[in-house]
Amino acid sequence: MARGFFITFEGLDGSGKTTQLRRLAASLEAEGNTVVTLRQPGSTPLGDRIRSILLDSRSESTLGPIAPLTEMALMFADRAQAIHEVILPALAAGSIVLCDRFTDSSEAYQGAGRGLGSQRILEMHAAACDNLQPDLTILLLPSLEASLKRARRRNQRHSTKGSDENRFESESDDFYRRIHAKYEEIAAREPHRVFPIRDDASIEQIQTLIREVVATRLALPVG
Amino acid sequence: MARGFFITFEGLDGSGKTTQLRRLAASLEAEGNTVVTLRQPGSTPLGDRIRSILLDSRSESTLGPIAPLTEMALMFADRAQAIHEVILPALAAGSIVLCDRFTDSSEAYQGAGRGLGSQRILEMHAAACDNLQPDLTILLLPSLEASLKRARRRNQRHSTKGSDENRFESESDDFYRRIHAKYEEIAAREPHRVFPIRDDASIEQIQTLIREVVATRLALPVG
Repeated sequence: MARGFFITFEGLDGSGKTTQLRRLAASLEAEGNTVVTLRQPGSTPLGDRIRSILLDSRSESTLGPIAPLTEMALMFADRAQAIHEVILPALAAGSIVLCDRFTDSSEAYQGAGRGLGSQRILEMHAAACDNLQPDLTILLLPSLEASLKRARRRNQRHSTKGSDENRFESESDDFYRRIHAKYEEIAAREPHRVFPIRDDASIEQIQTLIREVVATRLALPVG
Repeated sequence: MARGFFITFEGLDGSGKTTQLRRLAASLEAEGNTVVTLRQPGSTPLGDRIRSILLDSRSESTLGPIAPLTEMALMFADRAQAIHEVILPALAAGSIVLCDRFTDSSEAYQGAGRGLGSQRILEMHAAACDNLQPDLTILLLPSLEASLKRARRRNQRHSTKGSDENRFESESDDFYRRIHAKYEEIAAREPHRVFPIRDDASIEQIQTLIREVVATRLALPVG
């Protein structure tokens, strides 16, 4: 039976992961692969409804403040639907699936950033996502200083919009520090899955590096 | 510090739990207690948004079929918000909280009925609800035959409406059998928390029994 390949992109906002995901998708498609891309939260009609609750809870006073555990459970509801409706069918059809953020983001942002703890996130992932693991995770992790600078710049630029990107804008540097450290911890914990790119290289250089890593992994037999 | 008392009502659709909950609330209030009632899913503005996704996923073809794990995660998102916004504040204020369905329903309907398994539900409850346990659960469990008869009758009556009550209408008797057996299993597993009422007694007789059980428990020191 055909079995595709599941790649996730992770990193802080502004790390360039969305750009790199698009470029990788284009080059894989140019080589004749079937590529399915998605982002989290969102990417299914039901996920879009969930995403709008998450966004509205930050702007609509009628909804009341969302509890961190509610936010976490909604993220996993969205993820469960994306797995069921998009990811598993695409993998079964032999496609390469590229996903912008997955459970590592929950572990870094909710687990470390919001202090819910890694264990809780990993238990949620086991329960709601049948513990589905990516075949490869590209972790874009420039130095903490560079990440903080970019995050601050983005937050200023987006501060009047209700976009996803600035939802953590009011968070302190310490919040980003915890997320950065958790990403490092995940990379150390799962070296076979997570490929961290720590250099502040050019977009083109990083693109080439990702392309090489993916080519190598695709050439290996999938377990 | 004041600490209220948390009572949940459980049972199959048509077991009379909603009626009994209302009557208990009225008698407790008449005695001067502050009583907070809620139902699941729903009971917070954010929970109502989640509930509408659950209902729409059954009627709107644009949403695509909801995955059982998505349904489960949404139920727990709703529950996490109700705990944060309603249940814990009410208990901290010394109120008696009466909740129509709680995690036992997830274990019976999703865990046993939909086959997701008890362990998964209990892990979700630990992760999303900090494992909050009711002080007392009133489980209305008439005989399986009586339950099946009522469920069939209700389904016929509601079959043209999009109500919560008939969402399992298309399920087989076997589905209800699994739920019934799981409720029995929960009662046997947690005898100190769960008080099962198995008789097909009159509404008034059951009401009196519940009132006595609650009075006894309220008189005990809360652990």
